[in-house]
Amino acid sequence: MANAIRALSMDAVQRANSGHPGMPMGMADVATVLYSRFLKFDPLRPDWADRDRFVLSAGHGSMLIYSLLHLTGYPDMTMDQIKNFRQLDSITAGHPEFGHAPGIETTTGPLGQGIATAVGMALGERMMNARYGDEIVDHYTYAIAGDGCLMEGISHEAISMAGHLKLNKLIVLFDDNGITIDGSTDMSVSDNQIKRFEACGWDAVAIDGHDPEAIAAAIETARNSDKPSLIACKTVIGFGAPTKAGTSKTHGAPLGDDEIAGTREKIGWPHAPFEIPENVLKAWRSAGERGAEFSAAWDAELAKLPADKRKLFEDQMAGKLPDGWKETFQAYKTKLSEEAPKLATRQSSQKALEELTALIPQMIGGSADLTGSNNTKSGVQGPVSVDNYGGSYIYYGVREHGMAAAMNGLALHGGFIPYGGTFLVFTDYCRPSIRLSALMKQRVIYVMTHDSIGLGEDGPTHQPVEHLASLRAIPNLNVFRPADAVEAAECWELALESEKTPSVIALTRQGLPAQRKDISVNYSGYGAYILNPSVLDRQVTLLASGSEVEIAIAGQKLLEEMGIGTAVVSMPCWELFKQQPQHYRDEVLSPGTLTVAVEAALPFGWHEWIGSQGAFVGMTDFGASAPIDQLYKKFKITPEAIVDAVKARL
Amino acid sequence: MANAIRALSMDAVQRANSGHPGMPMGMADVATVLYSRFLKFDPLRPDWADRDRFVLSAGHGSMLIYSLLHLTGYPDMTMDQIKNFRQLDSITAGHPEFGHAPGIETTTGPLGQGIATAVGMALGERMMNARYGDEIVDHYTYAIAGDGCLMEGISHEAISMAGHLKLNKLIVLFDDNGITIDGSTDMSVSDNQIKRFEACGWDAVAIDGHDPEAIAAAIETARNSDKPSLIACKTVIGFGAPTKAGTSKTHGAPLGDDEIAGTREKIGWPHAPFEIPENVLKAWRSAGERGAEFSAAWDAELAKLPADKRKLFEDQMAGKLPDGWKETFQAYKTKLSEEAPKLATRQSSQKALEELTALIPQMIGGSADLTGSNNTKSGVQGPVSVDNYGGSYIYYGVREHGMAAAMNGLALHGGFIPYGGTFLVFTDYCRPSIRLSALMKQRVIYVMTHDSIGLGEDGPTHQPVEHLASLRAIPNLNVFRPADAVEAAECWELALESEKTPSVIALTRQGLPAQRKDISVNYSGYGAYILNPSVLDRQVTLLASGSEVEIAIAGQKLLEEMGIGTAVVSMPCWELFKQQPQHYRDEVLSPGTLTVAVEAALPFGWHEWIGSQGAFVGMTDFGASAPIDQLYKKFKITPEAIVDAVKARL
Repeated sequence: MANAIRALSMDAVQRANSGHPGMPMGMADVATVLYSRFLKFDPLRPDWADRDRFVLSAGHGSMLIYSLLHLTGYPDMTMDQIKNFRQLDSITAGHPEFGHAPGIETTTGPLGQGIATAVGMALGERMMNARYGDEIVDHYTYAIAGDGCLMEGISHEAISMAGHLKLNKLIVLFDDNGITIDGSTDMSVSDNQIKRFEACGWDAVAIDGHDPEAIAAAIETARNSDKPSLIACKTVIGFGAPTKAGTSKTHGAPLGDDEIAGTREKIGWPHAPFEIPENVLKAWRSAGERGAEFSAAWDAELAKLPADKRKLFEDQMAGKLPDGWKETFQAYKTKLSEEAPKLATRQSSQKALEELTALIPQMIGGSADLTGSNNTKSGVQGPVSVDNYGGSYIYYGVREHGMAAAMNGLALHGGFIPYGGTFLVFTDYCRPSIRLSALMKQRVIYVMTHDSIGLGEDGPTHQPVEHLASLRAIPNLNVFRPADAVEAAECWELALESEKTPSVIALTRQGLPAQRKDISVNYSGYGAYILNPSVLDRQVTLLASGSEVEIAIAGQKLLEEMGIGTAVVSMPCWELFKQQPQHYRDEVLSPGTLTVAVEAALPFGWHEWIGSQGAFVGMTDFGASAPIDQLYKKFKITPEAIVDAVKARL
Repeated sequence: MANAIRALSMDAVQRANSGHPGMPMGMADVATVLYSRFLKFDPLRPDWADRDRFVLSAGHGSMLIYSLLHLTGYPDMTMDQIKNFRQLDSITAGHPEFGHAPGIETTTGPLGQGIATAVGMALGERMMNARYGDEIVDHYTYAIAGDGCLMEGISHEAISMAGHLKLNKLIVLFDDNGITIDGSTDMSVSDNQIKRFEACGWDAVAIDGHDPEAIAAAIETARNSDKPSLIACKTVIGFGAPTKAGTSKTHGAPLGDDEIAGTREKIGWPHAPFEIPENVLKAWRSAGERGAEFSAAWDAELAKLPADKRKLFEDQMAGKLPDGWKETFQAYKTKLSEEAPKLATRQSSQKALEELTALIPQMIGGSADLTGSNNTKSGVQGPVSVDNYGGSYIYYGVREHGMAAAMNGLALHGGFIPYGGTFLVFTDYCRPSIRLSALMKQRVIYVMTHDSIGLGEDGPTHQPVEHLASLRAIPNLNVFRPADAVEAAECWELALESEKTPSVIALTRQGLPAQRKDISVNYSGYGAYILNPSVLDRQVTLLASGSEVEIAIAGQKLLEEMGIGTAVVSMPCWELFKQQPQHYRDEVLSPGTLTVAVEAALPFGWHEWIGSQGAFVGMTDFGASAPIDQLYKKFKITPEAIVDAVKARL
């Protein structure tokens, strides 16, 4: 059975003339034991909620998972797809892509992401278990990780978090083949992985990764542990290749016809490429067919749940929001409109969260050790801990990257809408995972406070100047920057309703006055809108976001007093604005008027809106350490600077 | 002496009404022992080459280092500066900023960066030692790290690398106070740090961080170890504060007048704010005065070196390039111009490196486990290893972030010009360190290959689409994207000469034809230039970079055949182009002509050049997995698409 994986992998890579045969050939025995004897899955119901999750963290070995899905009988994974490995429009992409084929639980390839996402999935399992009981939620999360995954820094954050939270149903199978692209791991790493994992609260054991009984025994032990488990599987990369096995030559290139012929001989696989003998296929298919029984038994358990609880479970797994939440939330916005509070938008966000987390219990909050600064915890949320997986707030520790990947895992697992906070500048630390949120179209919400020089004294290391731009550059990511409490509430609403698009909500440290009265429409949903029209004939359009809307309004006043008709456009989300029809965009931007953008950030990207003739009032370089008022003056982000920019051009 | 640190720290934070008193108060005893009994430094010659390096990885505790610099007698660190903590234009920024004051060896604040940068410094010491001997180079690198630093993923990469390379003169003092911002570390982490460091090849010991003799003994032992050493110092955060000590309340806010008064009483410090009694100051100053002897002894050793070796040492430490390198390199460019090779720019880069590393031995290469793909290793470079610190190529392992931080450390240490490679998409993994290269104005060169969908089958996880934009958004970072072998050589030249600006050189996987004949001038130094002027009257300007220059040239041909005069501008570096005078930029861009940009990336940022009327031919979303030719067609980045874009607008 393992040789079927080896043959498919080397043949598909050869046919594509591109890919990574070494890892699937080396881990074929481990994967065979896992899929045929342990993994709880049903190829005909790949989305069945209580399936075990399998994550191929070493995503370059994608032929391993494609082989497994084909052999065990996932209908979409036909032999034609295998033959079209790495070809345009196939579902068998170079690295496993979530959404391409059922059975791929997460996109992997960027190393370390899989194992960190698996931590989120395993946590999601424990948290759903706490809510619905052992009969409904009781599954394992398995991940295959390579040397590369374990060298990446994110692996530390993931391992440390899993150990702390005692995620005992997480089992990592380490492909300990001693080889990376550059050659032997001796060249670059001397870690004792067993000791390392034990230091973080894991069970860890080393086994022969080509001995099925040893593999099975280790998995069995791991399943019964009260800690997460590492199984270091000593393997030979490219197992079976007569001259290249055990070398980096098998890692990322086709073996070549001669080596493949030699492998066929060596492993005793006389069959033609893409031909699986009937007895082998039958054995594999029966491994897949085990699943029908599991899933049927689970159906019976689900049916026993009271109807309302069952509906709740199904709705949560389907990502549906509770009925009526918007109406209640609208009442909150009405209150805001009446009270017009002066608040930092991070506080406005917290107020919104107080309402929302009470209405939408599947929201799971957290922060990378900045709870009080990010204002991410609401009163109804208890902390998630070993003693209370029923909690709904996660103290992620100083682990921005691990947090982001875990949020991807929580979202992919289903049942939860994760949000998590850090400072906007530290999106840099979690960018690879934010990118995956976007690529995988997951509803993950990043609450990023201290969003400009407005944070003051902490200085340039903590002041984002390029981060709005660098996040706006990511496809399928909504970057929100609300200007007041109403917009903050609206942005939260939009983020929660964006089922296929993650969101960054950038929030201020400093207080901001209320700007919006009219809450009849979620104007933030247009991305940009005329917040304050000109009184005189419009000659100038000021575009601003977040904390600079206040400055734009003050600039507008000065300009109007000078007889220059000026409108202020609040622009909380470029991405949504781009989706509006041309006539709406023209109405807002009024082409022909002088456009001046105001944002306490670098101008990068703004020329799309201000054109060749417009101006920008904002930053030109890194920030500085000083009290906020001095910084805005030093960097000339003031109403007077707006007037100067206009006068220089009108 | 330690209480002087405590008093200055709590008083400066109180006066600024902003800052972090807890850490300096907790680590005051450790820092006092280190600075008064071990650290080799000379306040009057802060740049003396063989000084010990001290890194405050827990940068929020900046008042610790400011106190130390003041107390030991660094002339710039006056009491007025201490009083102006966190104020505009003071050298006492919220977090320690490299370049603000002598004695600050690196900018810290983003957690984990300091410890990873210290690894680069400690490696630099060993490498310079291998080149110049024990008499000239023999110093320790000390870093103070907190819980946050050790939770960050980058700490794993750094620790693992240091253990592998047995950097035995690296000593990390861990402020083991059990507190982070969110509260007790019990809430988020359960790592056994001693075991963890041991697993990575370190010596590790736990001590009482308030016991001077224990501290001294541990440092003494660490200095004699053949491994890097962790000293976990059990401390009380905010030591001395009567009600807040040991709690997160002391971490990031002023203590308040009452608590400060109580602290004065508790620690027996009756002196007024910013008043240091004479005997205490004298003790501190004499700790600083130790340095003159050390540095004088070292001067004597340096004087013994043969004149040429001494000059080499001094030039390398000063960052000077060897005489005559440019002339020899010019001959190489002449050859390129004659041979007009068709090469991937990653190969062109390697060819340039073969020349440059032979001419400039202080260039230190490396790759995050993609040596053969990044083409970063030249024939003259031997690997750096425990057995050969004299090597000049570093196998960084799958540690992009650790690599980038180590390169910062190598550059800061002095003596080396580090460059290192990974795939462009994985700049995401090392972005916090790239940002610090830029903020600290360090000559660090990032060699980023596989720079677009042109990498083909590896698919969207490996295809950068937003990365050029997100890097161009960072201030003081030159992002180069050469179009052929000549431009690749020119970009390398520019990167090496940019002493105060780090560089990213983005390179293709796929082959590209030669474009440039004229090598009389480094045209890439203008950032953009007319590569191929129009034959007919210029109506259209095509802007392109890297691999899309070839496509622009083909588009130009089609347009000229249609009677539309078209010029092609190659644009290898936006940042340098922005520095050109207006008349040059106008000459290149020819305002009034239709401008079309062509780049296999998202358009984000390009509107600055194409204006409101121009067009963009490039990506609109994430990439896909398929052979390269199919991808360029699928995403319509072709000569025909250029023609269509022009026709739609002319």
